[in-house]
Amino acid sequence: MKLLSYRLNDKIYFGPKVKKEEAVWDVLHIQETLQVLPKFPTTIIDGVGLGMDFLEQIRKLVEAASKAEQPNNFKRSFTEIEWLSPIPRTPKNIMAIGKNYADHAKEMGGTASQFVVFTKSPTSIAADEQTLSLHADITNSFDYEGELAIVIGKQGKNIPEKLAYDYIFGYTIANDLTARDLQTKHQQYFLGKSLEGSCPMGPYVVTKDELPNPQELVVVTKVNDEIRQNGKTSDMVFSVEQIIAEISKSVTLEPGDVILTGTPAGVGKGFNPPRYLKSGDVVKISIEGIGTLVNKFE
Amino acid sequence: MKLLSYRLNDKIYFGPKVKKEEAVWDVLHIQETLQVLPKFPTTIIDGVGLGMDFLEQIRKLVEAASKAEQPNNFKRSFTEIEWLSPIPRTPKNIMAIGKNYADHAKEMGGTASQFVVFTKSPTSIAADEQTLSLHADITNSFDYEGELAIVIGKQGKNIPEKLAYDYIFGYTIANDLTARDLQTKHQQYFLGKSLEGSCPMGPYVVTKDELPNPQELVVVTKVNDEIRQNGKTSDMVFSVEQIIAEISKSVTLEPGDVILTGTPAGVGKGFNPPRYLKSGDVVKISIEGIGTLVNKFE
Repeated sequence: MKLLSYRLNDKIYFGPKVKKEEAVWDVLHIQETLQVLPKFPTTIIDGVGLGMDFLEQIRKLVEAASKAEQPNNFKRSFTEIEWLSPIPRTPKNIMAIGKNYADHAKEMGGTASQFVVFTKSPTSIAADEQTLSLHADITNSFDYEGELAIVIGKQGKNIPEKLAYDYIFGYTIANDLTARDLQTKHQQYFLGKSLEGSCPMGPYVVTKDELPNPQELVVVTKVNDEIRQNGKTSDMVFSVEQIIAEISKSVTLEPGDVILTGTPAGVGKGFNPPRYLKSGDVVKISIEGIGTLVNKFE
Repeated sequence: MKLLSYRLNDKIYFGPKVKKEEAVWDVLHIQETLQVLPKFPTTIIDGVGLGMDFLEQIRKLVEAASKAEQPNNFKRSFTEIEWLSPIPRTPKNIMAIGKNYADHAKEMGGTASQFVVFTKSPTSIAADEQTLSLHADITNSFDYEGELAIVIGKQGKNIPEKLAYDYIFGYTIANDLTARDLQTKHQQYFLGKSLEGSCPMGPYVVTKDELPNPQELVVVTKVNDEIRQNGKTSDMVFSVEQIIAEISKSVTLEPGDVILTGTPAGVGKGFNPPRYLKSGDVVKISIEGIGTLVNKFE
């Protein structure tokens, strides 16, 4: 199932994409009107915390709406909604793995041997199709990093690798935008990774049942339609399972937490001279099975 | 005003300390029973977001309760409540400044020239008097760091130094517990700084009107009553005002955010040989005007 979050009349909603239509099912409206279920979560984070039961509930709501007299009353066209990140706000900072592809570690002048985790402020979350600032007032080296993002569905600590998939709700695409000068200057990455709009995610969170093997995905990043990154998740140094196991040795994971799994080679800093983002650039990150995350920069 | 958070019958409450008594005013109960105010926040974060108006509301509630027939009905004795961190859960990761005292930077083998910010997971928050784990299964170098913590009261971005105090709600004490081996191994500090219980805070958040000059405070850390750290906040490399200005250049600050301002010299790692925490140790961190944060380790 492909889930999205959106804003309409100043309220935040979520719902599944309507199949073969450019629209979303307004599941909260379905539940309110038709009272299909005894109970239904009002935020996507609460829903994600129900795991696969959440999908079952959504399916029941969609089925009821499809059989209603006016199914279209329960759909919102993509043209009338404001897209948000599928997880509009994470319960803690977004966690991200540094140098998780050997060829990217090399282009950054390092090696990919250690497990490095940094965080991005949840205030940096942005949406698909949102125009984002280059923050030219404080950085002259704003760089893209296309990544597969994991959405956690269950609270866990010390999660064994073999059980890691039980804790995943689904996947989305993220651009781990980075002010390279701030990243270097401040030593710890947090500030350089947390500028407003520096974590666009979307367009959907695709539930794990639709992406049974996250280690066999191609991640392609284009800047103005020129291919810059063309990586395979099979090249990750630490796999999705290892990432969840390793982080959860130290940190309690919670429903709605997002983990960015690292970026392949081809970031702007890797070129000589570097090719950082400039005004008017459009970055498109595609992962098969999830879609394409598009952002313009100004 | 000294505010605390506590748990009673599985619910989280907050309130001001009752003057000269070892008890807290149950302000939510006062408001529910006596309906003093048209509206009153139900969480401390919502309250903190009201800034000094929150204190005015609390004063009105306490005044009404004091005049009630049975004022004691609105007090909860410290013996019957479970203490929590005054901010039980921050809206994003706790932010913390690295090497913000020159003598501490030196004992860590560095210098205090750059502005370094790392984060701690909100799942690491713990309470005063709570017994904490040494996490001996994953670290053999769990270390204390006594620090003054700022509690943010107002959303802000690009906050000028001169206006920084407007964005502060108050102050508390924190122990920025650190697994030194994990901190070093993972390069970025997040994992080594985020073990469960590694951010005890308290006992109170003291509102800024009671601590007009946060740069003239003594921070004393004792391990088993031996003085290990004895620093002055006047020795900070980056002042409270500069910290808020610098962070908010990159990150949007929000009510309830907590910023740890760095630790003075005297951490366990600074000794030769290092003196890390061991089972049975009791760490007491005192800051005049706030109180003493006490935790035992096992």
